[in-house]
Amino acid sequence: MKSEEVDFYKMGGLVPVIAQDSETNEILMVAYADKEALELTISSGYAHYYSRSRKNIWKKGGSSGHLQKIVEIRVDCDQDSIIYKVIQTGGACHTGYYSCFYRILDNNGFHLSGKKVFNPQKVYKS
Amino acid sequence: MKSEEVDFYKMGGLVPVIAQDSETNEILMVAYADKEALELTISSGYAHYYSRSRKNIWKKGGSSGHLQKIVEIRVDCDQDSIIYKVIQTGGACHTGYYSCFYRILDNNGFHLSGKKVFNPQKVYKS
Repeated sequence: MKSEEVDFYKMGGLVPVIAQDSETNEILMVAYADKEALELTISSGYAHYYSRSRKNIWKKGGSSGHLQKIVEIRVDCDQDSIIYKVIQTGGACHTGYYSCFYRILDNNGFHLSGKKVFNPQKVYKS
Repeated sequence: MKSEEVDFYKMGGLVPVIAQDSETNEILMVAYADKEALELTISSGYAHYYSRSRKNIWKKGGSSGHLQKIVEIRVDCDQDSIIYKVIQTGGACHTGYYSCFYRILDNNGFHLSGKKVFNPQKVYKS
């Protein structure tokens, strides 16, 4: 396990992580990982991230059940960005969409592209 | 044009941008954009980024010719990450690989996956 070869320095201990559907290559979400989150991801086989707002590590799907099973982890040329290629249970986005990138930007602003795959009010019970 | 709907605040004026091959959905690179770089991208139809190290805007392919023609721009649910779906000329990575994510991380460290599509010594003449 070689998380020490990842450059966490440039972003104050974090790297951006792209979660990508391993079957379709659809981009599901972007989040961040610190060294511990990356190591937990590698050791557990499920995606973990670091929340910049809550300042803690979270396991994707921990409350929703929408886990991301790791198929492959990739690192870029300067070792400061990571891809988790995953099998996504349910949907990646807390809004109910399969991908967080459900909006396209054009000259008229944003418009929706994609459909909801779950009801967030049922999945995220308060 | 609605770049003002993108949240540049969280990262001090920047958002991470994922360049993605519009045909295969392969992730090509991760870089950053400020508001001006995003607006230049939208108005020109070619990917522009903001360099954190050089502290300026750059057009991808400006020196190499390896332009990224914009097919679609997507934004995520909390509007702090962007996807440029592009047609990539040549290769995206300065090392000669088509994608910057040419290495897979496993228990033995990183190993290469992918092949070089150009010779960087010929493309990036000093």
